[in-house]
Amino acid sequence: MTDQPCIAIDAMGGDEGLAVMLAGVARARRRYEDQFSMHFLLVGDEQAIRAGLANHPNLSAHSEIVHAPEVVGSSEKPGQAMRRAKTTSMGIAIDLVKKGRAHAAVSSGNTGALMAMAKLSLRMLPGIDRPALAAPLPTLGDNDVVMLDLGANTECDARNLVQFAVMGAAYARTTLDLERPRVALLNIGSEDQKGTEEIRAAASELRAATHLPLAFTGFVEGDKLARGNHDVIVCDGFAGNIALKTAEGTARFVADLLKRAFTSSTRSKIGFLISRPATQLLRDHLDPNNHNGAVFLGLKGIVVKSHGSANELGVATAIGNAAKMVRNDLTRRIAEDLGLDHQPTIVEKAVL
Amino acid sequence: MTDQPCIAIDAMGGDEGLAVMLAGVARARRRYEDQFSMHFLLVGDEQAIRAGLANHPNLSAHSEIVHAPEVVGSSEKPGQAMRRAKTTSMGIAIDLVKKGRAHAAVSSGNTGALMAMAKLSLRMLPGIDRPALAAPLPTLGDNDVVMLDLGANTECDARNLVQFAVMGAAYARTTLDLERPRVALLNIGSEDQKGTEEIRAAASELRAATHLPLAFTGFVEGDKLARGNHDVIVCDGFAGNIALKTAEGTARFVADLLKRAFTSSTRSKIGFLISRPATQLLRDHLDPNNHNGAVFLGLKGIVVKSHGSANELGVATAIGNAAKMVRNDLTRRIAEDLGLDHQPTIVEKAVL
Repeated sequence: MTDQPCIAIDAMGGDEGLAVMLAGVARARRRYEDQFSMHFLLVGDEQAIRAGLANHPNLSAHSEIVHAPEVVGSSEKPGQAMRRAKTTSMGIAIDLVKKGRAHAAVSSGNTGALMAMAKLSLRMLPGIDRPALAAPLPTLGDNDVVMLDLGANTECDARNLVQFAVMGAAYARTTLDLERPRVALLNIGSEDQKGTEEIRAAASELRAATHLPLAFTGFVEGDKLARGNHDVIVCDGFAGNIALKTAEGTARFVADLLKRAFTSSTRSKIGFLISRPATQLLRDHLDPNNHNGAVFLGLKGIVVKSHGSANELGVATAIGNAAKMVRNDLTRRIAEDLGLDHQPTIVEKAVL
Repeated sequence: MTDQPCIAIDAMGGDEGLAVMLAGVARARRRYEDQFSMHFLLVGDEQAIRAGLANHPNLSAHSEIVHAPEVVGSSEKPGQAMRRAKTTSMGIAIDLVKKGRAHAAVSSGNTGALMAMAKLSLRMLPGIDRPALAAPLPTLGDNDVVMLDLGANTECDARNLVQFAVMGAAYARTTLDLERPRVALLNIGSEDQKGTEEIRAAASELRAATHLPLAFTGFVEGDKLARGNHDVIVCDGFAGNIALKTAEGTARFVADLLKRAFTSSTRSKIGFLISRPATQLLRDHLDPNNHNGAVFLGLKGIVVKSHGSANELGVATAIGNAAKMVRNDLTRRIAEDLGLDHQPTIVEKAVL
């Protein structure tokens, strides 16, 4: 547990380029100054980073440059990227976590490559077969809901889903400060016989596993994700990616329709101007850049995926989330929840 | 093709009960009076329907009652419901379509039971293995987008997905009046290697099948469903149900946040009152009751599923959609697109 996190930044990854990454890092440093004394290892082309830092004089004192000659392409296949782990900014940023030089790595680059490299370099926690991509999402309730897997694993079996439930609960316990998170499985109905065999099997495992530090609440449907009735929602990476992106797209769709409505007449324009401070708050609440930074759970180290199109604000949010995970000692907490100190592990008890 | 559709109504199905169903039927008759001269076969408990009709004197002249002694329960298993096909309001409504006494059936009841009964009674069109639940959804573009499968088939193979694409395109051609609908497969990325094996195989079939009356546009992600860049979106029933419900839930979530924002201060309340006519239009546009009525494509007859919680407006919308499908001769148009007049069928050519 530390308030002086050292974060390795893949400065070259993401659609927006180095300038936005550096601006995001600088913003994170300022924004979280009261909470953390952050230090950054900026990984990428040394000359370009040095030139970019000229625009952020205050950042230079809190960062050092780690040169990486290459960059992982946004559509590069994971296998191909992995062979360049030692020379790419993404691979080197992860390696800094492995070597203990950084507490966490943050990248806006290629998700598949990031997961493959992180898995190979950092390895999985004992008892975990696959990492899962998890992120907190906004709700109408008192706290966010943690959703996983958001796209790391296209297909999952019951054992994977149970492991995700345990890891997601541990994440909710540390970041949302909940004793016994309410965990649900995403499904297409609430009745026992609904969904795939994998989901039904995972449900029966979780229902039986009353010793786990979570309260299993059954199935949740797509229309109830944001109601605030659950703390963790578990699904395979296909369903999670579809749900997450559909939610993002729908929020933007409604916002676009709202814009049209407000500009449809002089009267509505006036009404809009008067209500603006209120609608601005809503806009901020829904801006994906305020919810950026998914983490690969199940690894022996913290690797945070920032959205490829994240802007300066989004990069800063992802870095802030990484710093909080470091402070909350997320990896150790998950390992504890997995019951690694005794045999059989909690997950083994749950699934064997 | 007829402007005098006769619609069989499962008057007992749905969460809202007989009174709402009858009010919806009465509303549909009034609402579409200019377009259709509708006739209704109201299927259910004769005495209860007769009593309910007392509140809708104008409807009586356009409807007759078909007695059904039993009702399918909302959580009844499909297999169990099927054994009561001859005595339940749902089963008898479908049978009226089979016997040619009604052009279409509309039910707000149990989806699984409705599909199982419809499949058994009406049978599949030649060349189609499974029915798919399809509905038009609102977009930012010029027309709605047809999405299928929305929950009839939890798991699908490539052949099913290709068949859904052909049926969805035929549906878009008839209801949206498009020559060559743009068809996309829902996936978790736009690159060729993304998604499950089934989706990738379906994509390669569709890419090769240039003789089909559709333009295959590749993969679409969940955040781009409502952009108006596609006319038909194809997926298995699990992903479709997750996407549809997540979109519904998110729209409601944003609306709830907006309400909070508008009531957060006197200033914003005043602004809201001034903009009200504009936001009311938006509310109507997003109200699921204005987009109610999914159809099981691939059957030899029209069966429309109304949302279980549809209100009077929702029921009326579903009935209007059924009437339009009757007028557009949807079943014949799909059969034609499937190339049933010659061997091998279009679908067979596409997948064999």
